Amino acid sequence: SEQDGLVHGLTAAEVQLLSAKSSEAKAQAYCPYSLFRVGASLLLHPTPTSTSPTIITGANVENASYPVGTCAERVALGTAVHLGHRSGSFKALGVATDMDDFCSPCGMCRQFLREFLELDTPVFMFDKTGRYKVLTMGELLPMSFGPDVLPSRE
Amino acid sequence: SEQDGLVHGLTAAEVQLLSAKSSEAKAQAYCPYSLFRVGASLLLHPTPTSTSPTIITGANVENASYPVGTCAERVALGTAVHLGHRSGSFKALGVATDMDDFCSPCGMCRQFLREFLELDTPVFMFDKTGRYKVLTMGELLPMSFGPDVLPSRE
Amino acid sequence: SEQDGLVHGLTAAEVQLLSAKSSEAKAQAYCPYSLFRVGASLLLHPTPTSTSPTIITGANVENASYPVGTCAERVALGTAVHLGHRSGSFKALGVATDMDDFCSPCGMCRQFLREFLELDTPVFMFDKTGRYKVLTMGELLPMSFGPDVLPSRE
Amino acid sequence: SEQDGLVHGLTAAEVQLLSAKSSEAKAQAYCPYSLFRVGASLLLHPTPTSTSPTIITGANVENASYPVGTCAERVALGTAVHLGHRSGSFKALGVATDMDDFCSPCGMCRQFLREFLELDTPVFMFDKTGRYKVLTMGELLPMSFGPDVLPSRE
Ligand SMILES: [Zn+2]
Ligand SMILES: [Zn+2]
Ligand SMILES: [Zn+2]
Ligand SMILES: [Zn+2]
Repeated sequence: SEQDGLVHGLTAAEVQLLSAKSSEAKAQAYCPYSLFRVGASLLLHPTPTSTSPTIITGANVENASYPVGTCAERVALGTAVHLGHRSGSFKALGVATDMDDFCSPCGMCRQFLREFLELDTPVFMFDKTGRYKVLTMGELLPMSFGPDVLPSRE
Repeated sequence: SEQDGLVHGLTAAEVQLLSAKSSEAKAQAYCPYSLFRVGASLLLHPTPTSTSPTIITGANVENASYPVGTCAERVALGTAVHLGHRSGSFKALGVATDMDDFCSPCGMCRQFLREFLELDTPVFMFDKTGRYKVLTMGELLPMSFGPDVLPSRE
Repeated sequence: SEQDGLVHGLTAAEVQLLSAKSSEAKAQAYCPYSLFRVGASLLLHPTPTSTSPTIITGANVENASYPVGTCAERVALGTAVHLGHRSGSFKALGVATDMDDFCSPCGMCRQFLREFLELDTPVFMFDKTGRYKVLTMGELLPMSFGPDVLPSRE
Repeated sequence: SEQDGLVHGLTAAEVQLLSAKSSEAKAQAYCPYSLFRVGASLLLHPTPTSTSPTIITGANVENASYPVGTCAERVALGTAVHLGHRSGSFKALGVATDMDDFCSPCGMCRQFLREFLELDTPVFMFDKTGRYKVLTMGELLPMSFGPDVLPSRE
């Protein structure tokens, strides 16, 4: 899939944008307890009327009661869903930290993402220098439990 | 405190705005499992440069694994914190549902809010007709456990 | 209510037991991230066949992804519910920490407890010396959102 | 690995025990909102003094505020950790539901388990007839974020 110059369907410019936005988002983290800043960014699929890539970002928001805090990925996706985006809207997710190594979304975020991302949607994990590793949603949460398993009431 | 025409420091127009925005936000809820739509809106304190009231909204985002979903109040506040708002930024919270009765934030949201709202910040709970009941943050979570109890590492 | 020598329906011996068991439970905490040990204990109402007070305990279990961890109160009540106890089973909750001051359950735990404790069930918060402060479930989570508000499917 | 008659290190009798205990645990589920019963059981490694297999069980405990509820796997592991079990204690996890198909732990539970299970610890997912599928901890949460990544304070 890199034959066409794309990485999981993204142009080099889109990957660069995802990296920059994830890194910027990180600066807004509220993490006085872990001191572990995380930024996340969701790239939307273009729409008939969109003229430039749309990105929605988030950062982690911790709490004195640790289990009550939330992660960057869930802030970004919560904002996006509230803006009206649903399954089919998301082209890629980016995550950036201050780590030397690539850092993946936690299991809770993988489950939260699973509700809206396609199984082949790529997740770009950027290290602090901007290098990245990519896994798809389906690779991050194999044999997962999504909205198809537990029927909605609607 | 209603002598000056204010309700917990808000003008009638601000309360009306909070009601309208909370109700609008509700329309974006993703709640196929509970069918229980909730909208939330945070009114910011004016800044030296603000010319009109700023409101940040959220709606509930559920998940096939119920414990992984999140509430309207946390989506709104997560978005706000990511935008750079912190303690001292928030003038009031509004919550709207489709219930006949007033519906309060759940305990998890009260704890999440406690990290950033002052103890005297009012929370307006609107029923489906727009009537409301108000409790302050401190009344909703008495003898609470906030950032002052568990020292940060910073 | 202290006229009969009882504190919120508990004898001095029961309060002492709750204190001792909460403190013992604390020793089992897994809290490498916060270093904040918490123990909780639930005193059950006596049954026709019980010959001594039954106590079910819990301690906090943290996680590298902070929001995924859980609190002492939820471990204790999760264990109790799994053992078959439901609304009407619980006479009191005790919580113990290493703090100089009294430490209350977080908002998330208050909501988790609200599903099974009566509004007048006492919650004893012990400081590190064993002194305590008591609030009822209803006082800890006023105007709360319980199983009566959101109807079950059953 | 089935050459020695073992499935991921378990004898047929141990797998049968895990299935029976997971199914029994399911009967204790409190799930009025989803009506989706789940049981989980943890098989401990034998100790020098143990004469029979030790199993610790759990069931899901839901809440009127859906995000506040917890899953069977976390109730079982919370109980186990409170009993003093840590990394190195767990030989296998079993999960049972009423589904026709195999049902895996949600992402949040995978993360909670990751803190204490080895990457090669098997997770047996039983369908309602007792047939099973097995994935290891490492397969369920690839490239995961465990206690080794985020250093503890101790
Ligand atoms: Zn996460
Ligand atoms: Zn809530
Ligand atoms: Zn708690
Ligand atoms: Zn789960």
